[in-house]
Amino acid sequence: MARNTQVAADHNAPPVTQTLANFVANHPSKGWSEAVEHEAHRTFFNWLGCAVGAAQHESADAALAAVQLLQPAPQASVLGRSTRVDMASAALVNGITSHTFDFDDTHLKTIIHPAGPVASAALALAEHQQRSGRELIDALVLGIDVACRVGNAMYPDHYDRGWHITGSTGTLGAAAACARLLRLNAHQTAMALGIAASQPIGVREQFGTMTKPFHPGAAARAGLMSALLAQQGFTASPRALEAPRGMMQTVSTKNDWREISDQLGERFEIAFNTYKPFACGIVIHPSIDACSQLRARGVRPEQVQRIDLRVHSLVLELTGKKEPADGLQAKFSVYHGCAAGLTFGCAAEEEFADAIVNREDMVALRRKVVATVDDSIAEASVDVTATLTDGSTVHVFVEHAIGSLQNPMTDALLEAKFHGLADPVLGGAQTQSLVSACWALGGAASVQTVVGLARPAA
Amino acid sequence: MARNTQVAADHNAPPVTQTLANFVANHPSKGWSEAVEHEAHRTFFNWLGCAVGAAQHESADAALAAVQLLQPAPQASVLGRSTRVDMASAALVNGITSHTFDFDDTHLKTIIHPAGPVASAALALAEHQQRSGRELIDALVLGIDVACRVGNAMYPDHYDRGWHITGSTGTLGAAAACARLLRLNAHQTAMALGIAASQPIGVREQFGTMTKPFHPGAAARAGLMSALLAQQGFTASPRALEAPRGMMQTVSTKNDWREISDQLGERFEIAFNTYKPFACGIVIHPSIDACSQLRARGVRPEQVQRIDLRVHSLVLELTGKKEPADGLQAKFSVYHGCAAGLTFGCAAEEEFADAIVNREDMVALRRKVVATVDDSIAEASVDVTATLTDGSTVHVFVEHAIGSLQNPMTDALLEAKFHGLADPVLGGAQTQSLVSACWALGGAASVQTVVGLARPAA
Repeated sequence: MARNTQVAADHNAPPVTQTLANFVANHPSKGWSEAVEHEAHRTFFNWLGCAVGAAQHESADAALAAVQLLQPAPQASVLGRSTRVDMASAALVNGITSHTFDFDDTHLKTIIHPAGPVASAALALAEHQQRSGRELIDALVLGIDVACRVGNAMYPDHYDRGWHITGSTGTLGAAAACARLLRLNAHQTAMALGIAASQPIGVREQFGTMTKPFHPGAAARAGLMSALLAQQGFTASPRALEAPRGMMQTVSTKNDWREISDQLGERFEIAFNTYKPFACGIVIHPSIDACSQLRARGVRPEQVQRIDLRVHSLVLELTGKKEPADGLQAKFSVYHGCAAGLTFGCAAEEEFADAIVNREDMVALRRKVVATVDDSIAEASVDVTATLTDGSTVHVFVEHAIGSLQNPMTDALLEAKFHGLADPVLGGAQTQSLVSACWALGGAASVQTVVGLARPAA
Repeated sequence: MARNTQVAADHNAPPVTQTLANFVANHPSKGWSEAVEHEAHRTFFNWLGCAVGAAQHESADAALAAVQLLQPAPQASVLGRSTRVDMASAALVNGITSHTFDFDDTHLKTIIHPAGPVASAALALAEHQQRSGRELIDALVLGIDVACRVGNAMYPDHYDRGWHITGSTGTLGAAAACARLLRLNAHQTAMALGIAASQPIGVREQFGTMTKPFHPGAAARAGLMSALLAQQGFTASPRALEAPRGMMQTVSTKNDWREISDQLGERFEIAFNTYKPFACGIVIHPSIDACSQLRARGVRPEQVQRIDLRVHSLVLELTGKKEPADGLQAKFSVYHGCAAGLTFGCAAEEEFADAIVNREDMVALRRKVVATVDDSIAEASVDVTATLTDGSTVHVFVEHAIGSLQNPMTDALLEAKFHGLADPVLGGAQTQSLVSACWALGGAASVQTVVGLARPAA
């Protein structure tokens, strides 16, 4: 789990993104000297000659062959919609939607959300290539192992530096999964990983915008394309990950190489995956769990005078927003999380709806939450004391929240979560069929059953 | 120009790329415990529920709308071929081909090759959207300004760290150019830059493989898609470049923010672009130029007993390959460069053909070249002394090679270079028409004339 960052940051940087945007949008046409205008023509001219001259090169053949594999579309399904698109676009969109609610999975050692990039790429390719459920599951296990092992090696420096580790390692995981599905040999697979190594995706500044879920989507897309390119003979460095100017040393100053190879093929990182019970950042989960436990013990919002939390500093650093204006902001508010836990006993996506976040009773309740930093409390724990209007107190200590590795979601809880998400889209009956098809996936002759059931009836 | 790197590197990293590739390619299907197998199903199941549940989210609508803009294909031309593909794929392939010969352009202050990512994205979009030459040139100037200004701000730390700065800043330049062509407003343009900021492309370890030219291609593709996403309402952080966990601080530890805004709209970075006279890394250019000058002064290979070079240390660090086995390796051999300069008086792509590199006389001649490091010689200079078989010597000092900012390629030289590249693909007559169309581009009602002339006759 994330620690306080040790990487120096400049918090006073001028707003250069907006400065450049204003310039690009508003600078007048030909608003420069004749010399600049002529240099622009020279630049274009020289570029065009180079492109025409190399048009028949084998790298152009390979790249063109790879992109032409995306035709004819449609090839793969956008999950939960009736739309089908080319497989690379399906990987992108499904990667986005699977992470949109911040409700997916977490490899806790690295806070990678591994399924987003890996499953999104693998399923799109498997659907188009009509692969079996067995092949898909194999690709998923191996792809997630690659992403999480590279993550283990680079964490925490890489994350502290600013990378959204889900996207930056996800490209590699997606490439590995797709290489496996394409039955590439070891050399081709190394080329796929190599091409992917030049495309780490995502910086943490994007948290709270659509570009956060874009990261696993773009990683899925890039990984899939890397495997297709490798299949067509495109080359990369066989030391693209580890070389001095390879990906890992470029995006992380500390790498523990043993994390890649130790117990490879014996210990599988997917075994350490966890699933979010609550649709928000994982550091709030202990507090929501604790307040849900208060509710289970009979405490009701109207009885509460004050709720005291003792939390690790990281909780307030990441989720200390006191007055969230909408659902997205509420996902970064431990105060709203507590109010939801106590009021509803849960915090799925609907408990983060704008209307809920701004409901008068919710606003009042979250203002009764007082959070105090206490670094003797682990990041994964919380100590909660509710003081009731009659002066009595109720105390809950959560060491490991529901959904953690030590206190995992049961299959039944996962099913309930799935129904909560899918019933409104697919209807309860079709969702139930989809649930059954998913558990049987490893033995399915094709992935088409699952894909078909994930499409809403017309 | 590049300096010696100051970033520590681990030169003894184990071959983890190949280790992971072997594992992914060869690990047996279901080669793990039942617990792992079940966890894989839980991972897939949980991921699928999240994707279905968010399928109707506005971010999915925006992403889907953007990818659907790539349909129906074909939309844009692969230059120098008769193939047309979707505009994003055209941006990718043209970005690759334009950099394949290492023969394109260089913004010397940052060693960015700016046209590859920017022009490849802009022309593909302009062709599909039937924009004027004026709009294309405007987009090119502004997009290159964005890429090079961000490069100025991050160089050299960013490059020393391992990034191929052409791809990492190129995504931003391509996004800016496409935002301009799409006539996005300043807010949308900031979103386009923001989405692009999560997709820096390319590490230097890839030099010498197809993934090097892939970098400008992938950057072109990512920039174009970022602009399309922004147009469809996709959001990113408005401080995605400069924030503490934004792109620039994540990929560079030193940023000079003034490089972004100083004289913005007055000084245009495209004015500092240069064009390669020789199809190889720029640090060899002074040596090739010097040996071409020896030839012009009457020195012939068979007269030469020995050629002494005094060069900056970077020249041998980057291009010190003594016995190149093929054309690609020869591009990193100052020894072959000298042999080509003396033998042919030039070093275009054909002088780097495998057959030329392995020709007996070329091998013999390059072995007569003795390079000595002398850091009193600037990186852009060389001091060459040829000792002839009669004992006499001929001396050439090149301060600024042809193609440098101080000694630029003339328009006539650019045209000769263009013909050398394009004549074999398009024929001399069509190439001449294309040359004329390029110089007239800024006044052209449409980019179609140039695009059409860059397509070989059937």
